[in-house]
Amino acid sequence: MRVIGIDPGLRNLGWGVIDTDGSRISHVANGTCHSSTGTPLGERLLSLHAQLSDVFALYAPETAGVEQTFVNKDGAGTLKLGQARGIAMLVPAQAGVSIGEYAPNKIKKTVVGVGHADKTQVAHMVKMQLPGVILTGPDAADALAIALCHAFHARTGNTLSAALAKAGA
Amino acid sequence: MRVIGIDPGLRNLGWGVIDTDGSRISHVANGTCHSSTGTPLGERLLSLHAQLSDVFALYAPETAGVEQTFVNKDGAGTLKLGQARGIAMLVPAQAGVSIGEYAPNKIKKTVVGVGHADKTQVAHMVKMQLPGVILTGPDAADALAIALCHAFHARTGNTLSAALAKAGA
Repeated sequence: MRVIGIDPGLRNLGWGVIDTDGSRISHVANGTCHSSTGTPLGERLLSLHAQLSDVFALYAPETAGVEQTFVNKDGAGTLKLGQARGIAMLVPAQAGVSIGEYAPNKIKKTVVGVGHADKTQVAHMVKMQLPGVILTGPDAADALAIALCHAFHARTGNTLSAALAKAGA
Repeated sequence: MRVIGIDPGLRNLGWGVIDTDGSRISHVANGTCHSSTGTPLGERLLSLHAQLSDVFALYAPETAGVEQTFVNKDGAGTLKLGQARGIAMLVPAQAGVSIGEYAPNKIKKTVVGVGHADKTQVAHMVKMQLPGVILTGPDAADALAIALCHAFHARTGNTLSAALAKAGA
C-alpha cells in the first residue's frame, strides 16, 4: 500500500510517501510545498493546492495521514494553519483516498515511543525505519513520521478496513 | 461588475451574488453551501469545494469578498473555521478572480454604519439596498452584506484597480 503523510502549514507544507508490503516499509519520496509570506492568501492556497495535487498525480498514494494540528499560539496563527489544513485535507479527498488524522502526540508515540519526543528524535527514528532516506527538510521529515504512523495504525486496526475498501485492495 | 460575497463556515457557508453598474446595485442570487457534522472532514471540505465551485460556474462572479473571520471560541473551533475558510479562498483563486478580505466590523460599518450591528440590522440593510431580495438564510444574508461591502470598497478605493485589472474591465 502506498501511503502519504502530510504536515500542514501555510508557509511550508511537508509531505512524505512510503510503500508498505506487510511489515516491510520503504521510502518513496519526500518534500515540502512552499508559499511566500508576501503573497495574497488566495494565491498562496491556490499554489499549495496545485503543488500538493502534483505530488498526488506523480506518486498516486492510496491513503493519506494528516496531522491533526492543535493550537498553542494566537487565534490568527490558528486560522492560518486551519486554512492550510483545509487544502491538506481537500487534495486527498479530491483524489478519492481515505484519510486518517493523527494528533502530534500520537504520531510521536507511534514513531518514537514517547509522546513528547523532539524533532531530532523524530527525524532519527524516521531514518532508522527508512534506511537510506534523504530528508529534504524538517517538515518533510515530520510528514514521513505521519506516513509511518498512518501505515502502522492502518495495518493494525481502526482505519484498515476503510483504507483497504477505498484503495480497492 | 458581478460581485460574490462569501461567509465562510464548515457547516454553513453562505454566498451572495450582486451586480453593480456605477452606483446601481442589483441582487442576483444568494444561498448556503452545507456539509453535515457527522461526515469525515475530508468529505465535508470536498463537498463545500464542489458546491461553491458550482456557484462560481453558474454565476461567474468577477471579484469576491470574503469575511476575515476572527476567533472568539476555542482553538478547535478556530481550526475548523480556518479549514472552511481555506476552501472559501481557494475557489475564487481557482476561478482567477480578485479577492478582498474584510473584518466583520468593517462589513457592518460599511453596510449598517456602525461596527457592532446585530444580525437583524444587517439583514434589514441588505433588504433596503437590494429591494425585492429573498434572503434564503442568515449566512446568505451575511454573504450579501459582504458582497455589498466589497462592491463599495472596490468602487471607492484600494481594491478597485486590482479588481478591474483582473476582471479585464
